[in-house]
Amino acid sequence: MSRQVVSYDDDGHVYEFAPEMEPVYTAADGESLTVETIDSLNKEIQTDDDLLEAIPEEVNAATGPVAVEGAEPGDVLKVEIEDVRVNEDRGRVVTAPGFGLLQDDDEIEHPATRVTEVDGDTIDFDGVSVPIDPVIGTIGVATAEETVSTLTPNDHGGNLDTTDMTGGTTAYFPVFQEGAMLAMGDSKAAMADGEMCGTGAEVGTDIDITVSVVSDPEVGVDRPVVDTGEAVKSVASAETMEAAVELANRDILALLQADHDMSKTEAYLFSSLVGGLEVSQVVDPLVTARNAVPAEYLSLPF
Amino acid sequence: MSRQVVSYDDDGHVYEFAPEMEPVYTAADGESLTVETIDSLNKEIQTDDDLLEAIPEEVNAATGPVAVEGAEPGDVLKVEIEDVRVNEDRGRVVTAPGFGLLQDDDEIEHPATRVTEVDGDTIDFDGVSVPIDPVIGTIGVATAEETVSTLTPNDHGGNLDTTDMTGGTTAYFPVFQEGAMLAMGDSKAAMADGEMCGTGAEVGTDIDITVSVVSDPEVGVDRPVVDTGEAVKSVASAETMEAAVELANRDILALLQADHDMSKTEAYLFSSLVGGLEVSQVVDPLVTARNAVPAEYLSLPF
Repeated sequence: MSRQVVSYDDDGHVYEFAPEMEPVYTAADGESLTVETIDSLNKEIQTDDDLLEAIPEEVNAATGPVAVEGAEPGDVLKVEIEDVRVNEDRGRVVTAPGFGLLQDDDEIEHPATRVTEVDGDTIDFDGVSVPIDPVIGTIGVATAEETVSTLTPNDHGGNLDTTDMTGGTTAYFPVFQEGAMLAMGDSKAAMADGEMCGTGAEVGTDIDITVSVVSDPEVGVDRPVVDTGEAVKSVASAETMEAAVELANRDILALLQADHDMSKTEAYLFSSLVGGLEVSQVVDPLVTARNAVPAEYLSLPF
Repeated sequence: MSRQVVSYDDDGHVYEFAPEMEPVYTAADGESLTVETIDSLNKEIQTDDDLLEAIPEEVNAATGPVAVEGAEPGDVLKVEIEDVRVNEDRGRVVTAPGFGLLQDDDEIEHPATRVTEVDGDTIDFDGVSVPIDPVIGTIGVATAEETVSTLTPNDHGGNLDTTDMTGGTTAYFPVFQEGAMLAMGDSKAAMADGEMCGTGAEVGTDIDITVSVVSDPEVGVDRPVVDTGEAVKSVASAETMEAAVELANRDILALLQADHDMSKTEAYLFSSLVGGLEVSQVVDPLVTARNAVPAEYLSLPF
C-alpha cells in the first residue's frame, strides 16, 4: 500500500480546532501517512524586510483534519511521529507588536524579522549556524465543546509549541469526538523552550506519522502526553505558568500512580526527585508547561 | 597548603543573607576549600514518622559566610563547584501544610515524609532506586540592602533550588559587599526541576569549591549566572514565573550581546531558537527560572 500524503494545498487545512470538524482524509487504525504543512505565516515572510505588523487573523494553518477509524470519545489517540523534514529553503524568526515575552521593551524592534536560510542540516541566523531540530508547533484534535483558534493551546493540543513534538516522539491526545480529527502545522526548523520572541524559525515540513487508537484505556488522558523515549512528559496549558505547572504535575501523579503501587502522596514526593517541570512556551494566549519523568521511572499504560 | 574546611558546626552558619555579615573564614582570591553543610531541616527528620507541621523559623542553614579577599561591590564572584558529596546515610523528602505546588490537594497528605536511605551511589525511595545527583539548594552572597531569609531566593542567590548548582558547574554572583560573603547549604541528594513538593531529598554535603574574584568585569551580572560546561544559564527569581522568565531572558540577551556582534533585537530573536527557558523551583517565597544557551553559542566575558 502506498503511503497516503495529506497536503496543505490539495487536501486542506484549518485555523480552528472545534467539536465538529470535516475530515480531509480518513486513516485506518494503525495507518502510516505523511502530512505536508506550510509555515505558520502562510509564506508571507520571505525576506528580512517582510515585517509582521500584527498577528494575522489566519495563522498556524493546521493540515487536516485526519479522521482515524474507530476513535471514539474517551479513547486515546496515539500519534507516532517518525520524522519531521523541512520542505523549503528558509525559515523565518519573527516578532510583532504586542506579541512575545519582551513586547514592552523599547530597545527591541517590534516588528522584526530574520530569515534563516537552510544550508544542509543547519539554518543560518545572521552568520550563526544552528542545527535543524524540527518542532511541530501546532498539533491537536477536535475539541470537546469550544471552538479554539490554532493560535491557542489547550487540553486538545493545538498551539502547544513544545520542542518534544518531533521525530522519535510518540504523542497521545484525548479523543473528544468520533474520529479524533488530527491536524498539525506551525512547524519550526529550530525553537527554544519558551519561544520567547513569539516564534521559532517558522518553516514548512513533511511529517511522517502512524496513527492508532487506544480503545477503552485503563487510564485515560485529560491532556496531551508525550513519550520521547527518554522521558514521559505531561503537557498542560493554562492562563499562568503557575496554573500550567500545577496541571502538568497532577497529570504526572496520575500516571505514576497507575504505573507504580504508589499513593498520591508518594507520587507527589517522588515527582519532586526526578525529571521535573519544563517550559514549552510563554507567549501564546495560554502558556504551556511540561512535567517530565525519565523513562526508567514511568511507563505509559497504553 | 592543606585545604581549608569550613564547617557548619565549628565555624558557623547563617539563616539570613544581609548587607552586613561577619565572615567565619577569609579565603584568598583563587583559594580552594571544602564547605560542610547540614540538611535544610537541621537533622530533625530521621524517620517517616517525623513530620513537618510547619516550616521552621530557622531553615536552610547556610554554612559561612566566607569572605573572599579583594572582592568589592561591582565585581563578580566566581565559584567553581568541583564536587558535592553526600555526608550522611539518608536524605528526606518532605512536604508540609501550606507549602508545595499541590498544597491545596485534599488527596495528598500534608505533612508527609519519606526518608531516602543512601545505598552507594543511589538513594532508595520506597523501593525505587534513584541515582544520587546532588544539588546545592541555597548558595549566595551578602545582599545589597535587604535582609533575606535563607528560604528566599533573589538577586544575591539564596534559595535558588537550581539543579545546575552541582559538581562541574561554575557559578557567578554579583558582589554587593566587600568580601562578597559566600554561604551555602540546603543540599539535596536528588531534586526535580520545580521541587514540587517543596523539597528534594534533603541531605548534608561536603562541597569542594574554588573562589575567585573577577575585578572590574567588562560586563557585570545583576543576578546569578551558571556555566555548566554544556550551557550558560541566567538564574532569576521573582514573584511569578512570568516575571522570573522575563528577567532570565533579559539577562541572557545582555550576555549574548556582549559575546556576539548582535543588536538587542537580534539577541532576542536568536534566544528564541536555541536552549531556552527552564524551571528551577516554583515553591519558595519567590520562584526561580533560568534561560539556557548552549555553550557553542555563548561564552562568558570573564
